[in-house]
Amino acid sequence: MMVVITYDVRTVDSSGQRRLRQVAKVCQNYGQRVQNSVFECIVDAAEWAALKLRLIELIDPEQDSLRFYQLGNQYKNKVEHVGIKTSLDLEGPLIL
Amino acid sequence: MMVVITYDVRTVDSSGQRRLRQVAKVCQNYGQRVQNSVFECIVDAAEWAALKLRLIELIDPEQDSLRFYQLGNQYKNKVEHVGIKTSLDLEGPLIL
Repeated sequence: MMVVITYDVRTVDSSGQRRLRQVAKVCQNYGQRVQNSVFECIVDAAEWAALKLRLIELIDPEQDSLRFYQLGNQYKNKVEHVGIKTSLDLEGPLIL
Repeated sequence: MMVVITYDVRTVDSSGQRRLRQVAKVCQNYGQRVQNSVFECIVDAAEWAALKLRLIELIDPEQDSLRFYQLGNQYKNKVEHVGIKTSLDLEGPLIL
């Protein structure tokens, strides 16, 4: 199934910047970055449980947020993209 | 039906900052901002056609991107939120 993960991580300090990098890194193990703060992950139920738990552990819930959208298995006709494709070096320092 | 709209707008110059404000403003007419660059809109087919067209006109496709996720009518159990709720004054000047 596809799960779309969007996140806002507050990056005013170095711990926030670290959380942002960690969230992105964990998501990258399961899916593809499609925008700066949007990942699309193809996971089974067990993978999703593990991924979700890991992400919830990583963020600071008083400063950051995660949002999850379940697109199921028939996701291909539910997703549309317009404009430039993400091709930045998003693992480098991000100035947000 | 619910459509989730995510966007990356390149804001290195004033025209990019203007595009970002315009995209957010148009989305706000149809839905709710749930993260900095994520809107959830409840629309019928005609509204969705109009909204999508307007957004596509607004962005610079060589610098920006839009991504649309169709969650259908049974969307309530497909969306999950963790962490802080968006409560910033997101219509003010955004430092991205």
